[in-house]
Amino acid sequence: MRREITGFSNPLVKRVRSLREKKHRKREGLFLAEGLRIMTEAREAGALPEMLFYAAEVAPHPLASALMDAVDEAGSEVIATSADILSKMSGKDNAQTLVGVYADRLTPINALDRASADIWLVAQSLRDPGNLGTILRTGDAVGAGGLILVDDCVDPFSVEAVRASMGALFTQAIVQCRWQEFIGWLRSGHGALVGTSLQTDQDYQQPAYTAPTFLLIGNEARGLPADYEAACDTLVKIPMLGKADSLNAAVAAAVMAYEVRNQLRRRG
Amino acid sequence: MRREITGFSNPLVKRVRSLREKKHRKREGLFLAEGLRIMTEAREAGALPEMLFYAAEVAPHPLASALMDAVDEAGSEVIATSADILSKMSGKDNAQTLVGVYADRLTPINALDRASADIWLVAQSLRDPGNLGTILRTGDAVGAGGLILVDDCVDPFSVEAVRASMGALFTQAIVQCRWQEFIGWLRSGHGALVGTSLQTDQDYQQPAYTAPTFLLIGNEARGLPADYEAACDTLVKIPMLGKADSLNAAVAAAVMAYEVRNQLRRRG
Repeated sequence: MRREITGFSNPLVKRVRSLREKKHRKREGLFLAEGLRIMTEAREAGALPEMLFYAAEVAPHPLASALMDAVDEAGSEVIATSADILSKMSGKDNAQTLVGVYADRLTPINALDRASADIWLVAQSLRDPGNLGTILRTGDAVGAGGLILVDDCVDPFSVEAVRASMGALFTQAIVQCRWQEFIGWLRSGHGALVGTSLQTDQDYQQPAYTAPTFLLIGNEARGLPADYEAACDTLVKIPMLGKADSLNAAVAAAVMAYEVRNQLRRRG
Repeated sequence: MRREITGFSNPLVKRVRSLREKKHRKREGLFLAEGLRIMTEAREAGALPEMLFYAAEVAPHPLASALMDAVDEAGSEVIATSADILSKMSGKDNAQTLVGVYADRLTPINALDRASADIWLVAQSLRDPGNLGTILRTGDAVGAGGLILVDDCVDPFSVEAVRASMGALFTQAIVQCRWQEFIGWLRSGHGALVGTSLQTDQDYQQPAYTAPTFLLIGNEARGLPADYEAACDTLVKIPMLGKADSLNAAVAAAVMAYEVRNQLRRRG
């Protein structure tokens, strides 16, 4: 279905704009993704927006036209509007020429098929949306199955997290749960829980990782709680040669994930 | 020298606040760093602020007191103020209880001692201050000598970059130059230039890296220009198993840097 919106005061503009806030995303079960690149990744991963808005004054890219046709065929809305209105929706001065409204896509932990991937990323009380999105992007690159968000993590559907994920939000399963649910589920099947810690001398290249490995990433400022570390099968540390005692959380996740990936690849 | 500022309209408050903008940082040759952790890292790396502001209503941490004494002894200013004024200076609602004004610390490329470290990071047209700071932090962790910013990179002294560096801004040499200056300097001595590229099939774990290795990181959206890739001694790619074709720039830098570090460590 195609239509047009030209007025800033249109209630739909206001509604879409409200999705920049977590409480509205939660109430509606919807979130925003912007830009051709991310929306094309989404489509390739099988996710089409419920509503697609585009700037009518810009000649659409062939991929954008194909995306609009697909949304149209799926019976969802394709809405012509202006670059200014898109800016208002996305809260960016220099907005993308496409904005999509997607149904949020959380997976219940019991629905995860742990055997479907060799690596799973698990983040605990992660606070920074850029880190969360970057971890999703890394997960996609290493062939992880998804990201399990334990305890009070930042919302994975925030505009910043979606942007930083560069579309990986649509290729990775996303779970939100408490620690007890996670550990109960984990121990009901196979899989090793690996955490990084300052309390161990074991270098991260020392263990032989096995599939599936669950990589546990702690909060940016505090790392992992002691009892969560105690619940890990393996604790390792990434060597630090400088003055600082820690890496950025998304960087630590990537260094660990590539080590596991490389080991599993070498052993075939 | 110790004094007190209680008024928001004090010209010094305005001046410090103005350092959040690049043009003022450039004109004054000064920048802001906030918080006990980063300012203590700075001190350990031998950098003291020209001016230190603290919230007088908060009992100072012993490390903060030690820092103030050191600033005092160095003949620089220690200024008591309020949490509200610190918030105004730093532009954060929930400001740190310490703000320091530091002299910027660029190193001319010709002053770099390339033999002083095994790894050097080189970023080209890097746009995101968070990525820049994170790359500095990773550089510190792998024992890199510094970060060479080629062409039009974001300002390494922006508040966001300083924050993301977690103090590594003070432990890493920072160079700003054009590509021609960099490549001229590089080729006047030994050292291999290694770039990541989508145009090669060589896995990043394949080459034997030698010290010093200069790791070239391209712009977030465009990667490296073709002629910069052509100037590299080695081009490698980090394998991507998912749908996406690239990693976050700071993540790619970290995965590469740890591979080089690990190889050099193994070979002793």
